[in-house]
Amino acid sequence: MKIIEYKNNQEDLLKDLLLQREIPERISNIVKSIIEDVKKYKDEALIRYTQEFDQWDASKGFVVDQEEMERAWKSLGNEDKEAILFAKERIESFHKRQLERSWFIEEKEGFFGMMVNPIEKVGVYVPGGRASLPSTVLMNVIPAKIAGVKEIYVASPAPQGYRNPYILGCCHICQVNELYLVGGAQAVAAFAFGTETVPKVDKIAGPGNIYVAEAKRQLFGTVGIDSIAGPSEILIIADDKANPDYIAADLLSQAEHDPMARSILVTTSRKIIEKVRKSIEEQLERLPTKETASESLKNNGKIILCESLLQATEIANLIAPEHLEILTENPWEILPYIKNAGAIFLGELSPEPIGDYVAGPNHTLPTASTARFSSPLGVYDFVKRTSIIQLSSCGFRKLSKYGVKLAEIEGLIAHKNSIKIRTERGKG
Amino acid sequence: MKIIEYKNNQEDLLKDLLLQREIPERISNIVKSIIEDVKKYKDEALIRYTQEFDQWDASKGFVVDQEEMERAWKSLGNEDKEAILFAKERIESFHKRQLERSWFIEEKEGFFGMMVNPIEKVGVYVPGGRASLPSTVLMNVIPAKIAGVKEIYVASPAPQGYRNPYILGCCHICQVNELYLVGGAQAVAAFAFGTETVPKVDKIAGPGNIYVAEAKRQLFGTVGIDSIAGPSEILIIADDKANPDYIAADLLSQAEHDPMARSILVTTSRKIIEKVRKSIEEQLERLPTKETASESLKNNGKIILCESLLQATEIANLIAPEHLEILTENPWEILPYIKNAGAIFLGELSPEPIGDYVAGPNHTLPTASTARFSSPLGVYDFVKRTSIIQLSSCGFRKLSKYGVKLAEIEGLIAHKNSIKIRTERGKG
Repeated sequence: MKIIEYKNNQEDLLKDLLLQREIPERISNIVKSIIEDVKKYKDEALIRYTQEFDQWDASKGFVVDQEEMERAWKSLGNEDKEAILFAKERIESFHKRQLERSWFIEEKEGFFGMMVNPIEKVGVYVPGGRASLPSTVLMNVIPAKIAGVKEIYVASPAPQGYRNPYILGCCHICQVNELYLVGGAQAVAAFAFGTETVPKVDKIAGPGNIYVAEAKRQLFGTVGIDSIAGPSEILIIADDKANPDYIAADLLSQAEHDPMARSILVTTSRKIIEKVRKSIEEQLERLPTKETASESLKNNGKIILCESLLQATEIANLIAPEHLEILTENPWEILPYIKNAGAIFLGELSPEPIGDYVAGPNHTLPTASTARFSSPLGVYDFVKRTSIIQLSSCGFRKLSKYGVKLAEIEGLIAHKNSIKIRTERGKG
Repeated sequence: MKIIEYKNNQEDLLKDLLLQREIPERISNIVKSIIEDVKKYKDEALIRYTQEFDQWDASKGFVVDQEEMERAWKSLGNEDKEAILFAKERIESFHKRQLERSWFIEEKEGFFGMMVNPIEKVGVYVPGGRASLPSTVLMNVIPAKIAGVKEIYVASPAPQGYRNPYILGCCHICQVNELYLVGGAQAVAAFAFGTETVPKVDKIAGPGNIYVAEAKRQLFGTVGIDSIAGPSEILIIADDKANPDYIAADLLSQAEHDPMARSILVTTSRKIIEKVRKSIEEQLERLPTKETASESLKNNGKIILCESLLQATEIANLIAPEHLEILTENPWEILPYIKNAGAIFLGELSPEPIGDYVAGPNHTLPTASTARFSSPLGVYDFVKRTSIIQLSSCGFRKLSKYGVKLAEIEGLIAHKNSIKIRTERGKG
């Protein structure tokens, strides 16, 4: 892991931490042609790509219905089911607090308000490749369900036709309407345009590889998109009181996700750096995911030595990490200085993986510095608002005069007429 | 205007109303090269494009500072100022109700919550071409200001170097930090990457022509984007009690915006259709924006005759219009059936242009059927949320067991280790 010694205002030193992933043009073009293909050939294209990428014949059907989901759930071991249900309950209980209500104001000028309605149809993408993540089903479907979305569909690839019972089982307990065993850009395109089998949805959520991310980027605007997931990141702020073994374990837990994952330690303590490096080496030895984790640390691991914890918060705000752990003596002391982060884990008993599964808050978080402007996935991502306007006679009399004036300033005469025609008839 | 006779479930008849605007590849490529140019050559590129598109020499500076904004405000007529300040106050008073607070739960398992922070730097695009819209400044800057955004910058083109005093003046009263007299895709790119003069911002808001929209689409993810504006739309639901002259005036007020604007009447009354068509012809005669309005009605105007008001709400939900007027005897009766619309105007004293200026709710609304999944611009667009997680000892003991189980199921061993290393040390 590369060490950077940071002093005030040396933002240049962080430059390569702020670089955004550029999608290679080759991948962009592949995704574009997959999207066009699915738009045109629908199911036929899905079957063709499933043969090519997942190596199985989907022509006899790629739908998992509710009965099959239920059987999968029942097939799971009791301890597994208990852990999944525990996570589900915690996630539900936290997300219920995000539910927004419609509101109205009644004033003498009239009725004004915002009506909040669930999105009608949602598609959730669940990756099925490298690691199969049943927690992705929980984290994406539960907020949609709480928002009141009536139709929730999941797409997840089945490599070599393998149907992951955890994914099927989680779809059952989250009351998913139907599951389609297709993946990649083709699954995203199917949700955006609809095929004979897959319904056209209003919004697509869920993580995925670079092809899935690029398909979502290209289809943004045609269909609602939650966010574009990049590789996972962690930034740990630690002082000299922090436990180096915990820091090492937490950095590794990000690094094992993906060779592109970024693990960053920001610390005021030179002593701790050596201890963390040693602990990483020791822990790596015993890690089955060693290959990915060490590649990731080599390419994207960084240790930043800074002069004060305040400076550490500045660095965190610049990088705007997906996950931020504060492993200092008094984590709450520096919390007010943190502006940009997806999720913040305070203190040594709050390791990031707890947040991935059972803490309650969502694990779909803004990556690649997008925490500067975006939020964790939440119930708010599955509703939409509508403004409500009803003027009273008194309100119309009062507002129309100024409305006419502003329409004149903007040179929009038919706008002015639409107001004036009502005043002229004595309605005002 | 083309008339469509609609019966139950004839969604096919509405097909061309649901078509989304395809961006021609030629425009996509132009925008792509402008973005690359600005990223590389910064101010130099801005000056070059301003010469090319706006025909003036920006090399001596294109910044309007707060002093110049104030002078512009003072130069406006009293009636204009009064109308603008009235609108500002109404918009502020409505949007203040959208402010979201941070919240926490304290339970024996620990502290969990969501922290809401304003986005740090916002760029607002204000078009300056066909129609110069000072109301755009108010509608975009006020919600950002209420969200608590500290740095707000505006970019707006100055064709032939003309500095619109209304735009400058509105920037003054909304306390904009700086205004840049650049437009088009180049202005959007400048906000996304920063130049020597224009700061890199975290999020870009504001409407614009197809080049601006395409630049926002291409930069989505690199920088936060409010939404991608398409041409304006209105859908009016009317029964036989509605005033045909009002309907005609309101359809024309959309049509005058843009030849691509869409004006749609959905009615249960065959009688009213003839009256509306006649009134449109009469009103068009006297309209200075006649050329645009009649082209728009010819290309994109539609009258849909349906069998019941309930059917009319189904049609509205399918089309998901930006603006929806309900001109029926009892508008509130059908409101509960409307799910997809940007803003709803109830009754004959609530013409859409009142909402453009002075009603209070935002006039930046989802276009081109995106009301299926998106919302009016609001204070919520200028904040971001961060999850907060701090486990107690008791919480860690309870949650760690299930966290370990789920990490095992997902095969993420370093995730499991990050939890186990803490339990093994007896901390749990």
